[in-house]
Amino acid sequence: MAVLNWGMIGGGRGSQIGPAHRLGARVDGLFQMTAGALDHRPDQGHEYGVELGLDPDRAYGSWQEMLEGEKNRSDKVDLVTVATPNNTHFEITRAFLQQGFNVLCEKPLTMTVNEAEELVETAKAHQRICAVNYGYSGYSLVRHMRAMVARGDLGKIRLVFAEFAHGHHSDAADADNPRVRWRYDPKQIGVSAQFADCGIHAMHLASFVTGQRVEQLSADTVSLIESRQLEDDAMVNFRMSGGTVGRLWTSSVALGRQHGLAIQVFGEKGGLRWSQEQPNQLFYTPLNGRLTVIERGEGNLSPEADRSSRVTVGHAEGMPLAFANIYTELASAISAQKENQSMDLGLVPTAEDGADSIRAIYAVAASGEANGVWTKL
Amino acid sequence: MAVLNWGMIGGGRGSQIGPAHRLGARVDGLFQMTAGALDHRPDQGHEYGVELGLDPDRAYGSWQEMLEGEKNRSDKVDLVTVATPNNTHFEITRAFLQQGFNVLCEKPLTMTVNEAEELVETAKAHQRICAVNYGYSGYSLVRHMRAMVARGDLGKIRLVFAEFAHGHHSDAADADNPRVRWRYDPKQIGVSAQFADCGIHAMHLASFVTGQRVEQLSADTVSLIESRQLEDDAMVNFRMSGGTVGRLWTSSVALGRQHGLAIQVFGEKGGLRWSQEQPNQLFYTPLNGRLTVIERGEGNLSPEADRSSRVTVGHAEGMPLAFANIYTELASAISAQKENQSMDLGLVPTAEDGADSIRAIYAVAASGEANGVWTKL
Amino acid sequence: MAVLNWGMIGGGRGSQIGPAHRLGARVDGLFQMTAGALDHRPDQGHEYGVELGLDPDRAYGSWQEMLEGEKNRSDKVDLVTVATPNNTHFEITRAFLQQGFNVLCEKPLTMTVNEAEELVETAKAHQRICAVNYGYSGYSLVRHMRAMVARGDLGKIRLVFAEFAHGHHSDAADADNPRVRWRYDPKQIGVSAQFADCGIHAMHLASFVTGQRVEQLSADTVSLIESRQLEDDAMVNFRMSGGTVGRLWTSSVALGRQHGLAIQVFGEKGGLRWSQEQPNQLFYTPLNGRLTVIERGEGNLSPEADRSSRVTVGHAEGMPLAFANIYTELASAISAQKENQSMDLGLVPTAEDGADSIRAIYAVAASGEANGVWTKL
Amino acid sequence: MAVLNWGMIGGGRGSQIGPAHRLGARVDGLFQMTAGALDHRPDQGHEYGVELGLDPDRAYGSWQEMLEGEKNRSDKVDLVTVATPNNTHFEITRAFLQQGFNVLCEKPLTMTVNEAEELVETAKAHQRICAVNYGYSGYSLVRHMRAMVARGDLGKIRLVFAEFAHGHHSDAADADNPRVRWRYDPKQIGVSAQFADCGIHAMHLASFVTGQRVEQLSADTVSLIESRQLEDDAMVNFRMSGGTVGRLWTSSVALGRQHGLAIQVFGEKGGLRWSQEQPNQLFYTPLNGRLTVIERGEGNLSPEADRSSRVTVGHAEGMPLAFANIYTELASAISAQKENQSMDLGLVPTAEDGADSIRAIYAVAASGEANGVWTKL
Repeated sequence: MAVLNWGMIGGGRGSQIGPAHRLGARVDGLFQMTAGALDHRPDQGHEYGVELGLDPDRAYGSWQEMLEGEKNRSDKVDLVTVATPNNTHFEITRAFLQQGFNVLCEKPLTMTVNEAEELVETAKAHQRICAVNYGYSGYSLVRHMRAMVARGDLGKIRLVFAEFAHGHHSDAADADNPRVRWRYDPKQIGVSAQFADCGIHAMHLASFVTGQRVEQLSADTVSLIESRQLEDDAMVNFRMSGGTVGRLWTSSVALGRQHGLAIQVFGEKGGLRWSQEQPNQLFYTPLNGRLTVIERGEGNLSPEADRSSRVTVGHAEGMPLAFANIYTELASAISAQKENQSMDLGLVPTAEDGADSIRAIYAVAASGEANGVWTKL
Repeated sequence: MAVLNWGMIGGGRGSQIGPAHRLGARVDGLFQMTAGALDHRPDQGHEYGVELGLDPDRAYGSWQEMLEGEKNRSDKVDLVTVATPNNTHFEITRAFLQQGFNVLCEKPLTMTVNEAEELVETAKAHQRICAVNYGYSGYSLVRHMRAMVARGDLGKIRLVFAEFAHGHHSDAADADNPRVRWRYDPKQIGVSAQFADCGIHAMHLASFVTGQRVEQLSADTVSLIESRQLEDDAMVNFRMSGGTVGRLWTSSVALGRQHGLAIQVFGEKGGLRWSQEQPNQLFYTPLNGRLTVIERGEGNLSPEADRSSRVTVGHAEGMPLAFANIYTELASAISAQKENQSMDLGLVPTAEDGADSIRAIYAVAASGEANGVWTKL
Repeated sequence: MAVLNWGMIGGGRGSQIGPAHRLGARVDGLFQMTAGALDHRPDQGHEYGVELGLDPDRAYGSWQEMLEGEKNRSDKVDLVTVATPNNTHFEITRAFLQQGFNVLCEKPLTMTVNEAEELVETAKAHQRICAVNYGYSGYSLVRHMRAMVARGDLGKIRLVFAEFAHGHHSDAADADNPRVRWRYDPKQIGVSAQFADCGIHAMHLASFVTGQRVEQLSADTVSLIESRQLEDDAMVNFRMSGGTVGRLWTSSVALGRQHGLAIQVFGEKGGLRWSQEQPNQLFYTPLNGRLTVIERGEGNLSPEADRSSRVTVGHAEGMPLAFANIYTELASAISAQKENQSMDLGLVPTAEDGADSIRAIYAVAASGEANGVWTKL
Repeated sequence: MAVLNWGMIGGGRGSQIGPAHRLGARVDGLFQMTAGALDHRPDQGHEYGVELGLDPDRAYGSWQEMLEGEKNRSDKVDLVTVATPNNTHFEITRAFLQQGFNVLCEKPLTMTVNEAEELVETAKAHQRICAVNYGYSGYSLVRHMRAMVARGDLGKIRLVFAEFAHGHHSDAADADNPRVRWRYDPKQIGVSAQFADCGIHAMHLASFVTGQRVEQLSADTVSLIESRQLEDDAMVNFRMSGGTVGRLWTSSVALGRQHGLAIQVFGEKGGLRWSQEQPNQLFYTPLNGRLTVIERGEGNLSPEADRSSRVTVGHAEGMPLAFANIYTELASAISAQKENQSMDLGLVPTAEDGADSIRAIYAVAASGEANGVWTKL
């Protein structure tokens, strides 16, 4: 597979997510960064791009420049990653899709459902990839859960309990700190804070693992630090397209929990439990059997798990490689696309998933304001 | 402290809870079993009582006989434990209270709120103890959590997340098994199954630890095995008298979970986590500090924890000793009562707690039937 | 089974082990304490005995008085527990055995191998029980390990790794504290400190679980707090009668470990892992299979495990009930003895085990002094 | 920092370690692979190198060709990784050092102590880097342990207990499988099997964390699967240059353990515990304090830990990034070297460490054959 050209918008100096994308794209040697518009301040973006090894003429000052500069090149970037502030995702992603680029957009895909639906259509119309970075779905054992469910190991799934509850915003004295405050400010962040930031990852996992969409939900949203206008804790009950009942808890004031993303899946014939903080073990209990531990990298897992695993069993793998698995599958799909072969996106989350997430965020906000009334997505 | 006389109603041969009570009452040598009406079949109750060492004339054939036989004795039983089917608790407990006996009743205290309130009044009128066996509150570290909250270690409590979710009724093929079926039959069990059986323990713990009462709640109740008329899984959101937000999950189809009683408490200044399956460790994180492990039996815990602990730190203690702690505190209170001293029930759950629980059960059932509408207790 | 009469020597006010024995003896209601010589100070022993409910004439001032007082009674004690300082075990145990009493002696059984062997012979000659309290062997899942090994689930046992390493004597500033110092003083404690105090429990478990005796060993003993004359840390390699290789680590300066008794067993067909601090789970991995969790109280365990378990699966059981299991089996054996039936001591550790332990203690001390030379027991 | 040129010898198609090195070298974008002699079969090495993106004239057929081809280039490789069979390490590494290349050699550095010492001298004489890949030392929290010890947080270190015991060679039926057999064949592997393969990693960690060298040791080596000529299990007691006592267990028949590398460090003022299978948590107990959990990525760790950490706290990081940390520090050192600045190898293990390891392997083998006699390194 030839090395693909890759470009990034956002992710400039000091960004947290930028290095994570560069690491994920680089790990398997399938992408090389050849273009970028890394900062909304043109000079700084250019300078940092050159520092990272870009040719000076491809270290662009803005995404508009990058679009102009790349669109007619023969060696134009094969994939653009969008890691800018949330409220710019839609415009940038749409523009690149319309010019025939493949895009991997950070979550949330857009600020409104209409925008998300428009991106779904745009990608379809231009036959380009519009992927969304729900990176936790890249973990080998998360993919194995999905495979176990899909092949019927657990029978019909009755219940899924998903969590993303951490305690990193527990300090009331810190609530006015600008580093934290914007996260709970509806002007900057939209209709939801903690659910949109973290809860949505847990909900995506619930859908990813069960292969079902969320159809309706009831939410209890609260601001446990009172100065916050948006929720810092939410409990969401939901119903899925295949009949599964869902429960989801998200919090940023759960003091003592470091990360807190976890999922439990209960079917007619078995149960599963997985946590992001111990990602190399999957706890599986067959009906009338004992709890057993499935290890990442052990022999005879599903093809979905095997191809998402790099080091031998017993060695820890972490989140950066989960991330890398998204890029690896994108590389396969894009390579096929370039050779006009049929393209398989594998397990990469797409704009459809992104749109489902935006629907869920609005439904949680609406239900939360209406005392938990059941709300359709 | 002189050894007290103790009697038991119910808990005959083959009962699960009977031996647990006898063990709990016996552990510290503060009670001796001197009377009993152990079975609704007079002959079998008498025979079993004698086998357990009762004098033949105090191995009664029925609770009515026992009441008659004991009430005029100078060495009458100092405490009666009621461990009969739920729908007989009220009548028996009331009768014994009215004749001046102290009672420890199994949960649920009664079948209706009115009955529970009547027992509260009866106990008050006759100045007798009416305790309810929420035995998990007897664990040393559960009591330490309560003490930490009470003395302000965690600041104001924002959130409590309680769970009692196990998987022991997950087998659909077993749903018609008489051993299981009655548990989901409203004719035998009342308005709630899994919440009344298990969830209520978790809710009691939430109240016990925070020192707050539940004021209103919203419940999502489901029968995940469809043939069941009552819920086998429920999520309950609630609000407490001190402003704490509560969340509670209970299930009997959470395959792979053995017991599943656990509680997390999140305050302004710290967080706590405890699980019944690992009861000798309490996980405590102070605000801006690291997670630390508090061990049962370590030096300098609260008096409430210290007096509820028997073996040295590092040795496991289990549920039977939690149970015993309830009996130990009852013995102290009864001894004071006998000497006409002021009586301190310590941390023993009382009829008031029992009544709160019945209110919660009805509220969960009502809210669950009304799509989760918020319901006052 | 009629309630048996039980007496205790030592275990007076303030003793740690005394209450543990009384609790263990009482839990199942099979013994009642009817005599005692609880303190080497006659008045205090008498007073405390009466306080605990003994008849004044059976609250003896010394073990000699107790022996005189009891030996001709028709209702004499059926079992005597010896919980006095180590260097008195031999004399007391021998005297009671010679007069036809059954004895449960605290570990170590004696101070020398000769004494231990004499007790083995005395018990045999008088057809009395001489048991030694290796109480950890009473845990339900420890007994299940033994049963699994005995019935061949693991095939031939290649290796056992036993640990009893804690950190409670880590403070050098505390080394001269009388509460700690005597434990490392050869004049008071004999040839070994940490191995004799804790390591020997781990070695007993290794023998108990494998059904093999230790034949030779090599020890590395060190005083990590230099002022100590005896070892506070030791590593012992050994070879067992059935060909199993053993390794054993014991320490009292392993800061951060609370208790630290654990065992791993590795056979041709499977491996096991168990820890006293989480005693209700046994980790079992069959060859070419996955790690599974065996729960205390689950269905279909071995008879040895089932009869040593009291509460339903998922509930924690702790060390006091392990202890009680020793008493329960003693009660069965003594009841058979009283009816002149054949007597089965079940899994109760006996004087033979006690003698093996003394041999091991001397071998460890000798090997440790000789740079780890292999030493026969 | 300019991207450095990197070359690899060994690590051809199907190799396990090859991809791990390429991933580790690539993660931070500091190295690009520009040359390689990937296979002892010239055609296959060339073909695979081209497939991986090498220029055809730098995809060499042998290490000798590579040495010739690179040594006079102006853009010659800045670092050569040697991942060939163990018995070729010495010759290749020496040849490249002599021609002025920096080398990262897989462990073991050589087959004999003399060879290792010669490489130490050669590197010194030519002022080149000769590093050895003890990759586990790259974990962020392993480095934090070292920093804590170095800055005195634990006081004097009394004891270190290191383990690398897994169960992957437990199947006797598999012992003749060529995939396993060579590992226990002295003709192919030298004087030690399991200790040289795994135990040495644990011993390196013990030295790395304490900053002390092993001075003498006593080993108990056994072949628990009898057909093996070399040990599959060993217990090693040792003494370190700073007075620390060491204990080390390694096994390949510890059925049920997946990886099993772990270390416990006990000092006068605190204790630490870390395990490779849960590498993002470090368990720390200060003297007279409680066990606390240090998280990788939390604020205010040591500089050594902070610079070895990539993703935010709570996210798992795994072994490939530990590996990458070795490459990152090599890149810094080489960049300084190229600019004739003073070069800091940071925490990268060097030929001196490699030589110490070979000494330990020979000492273990000698002591094991002599019934555990204490042997100097």
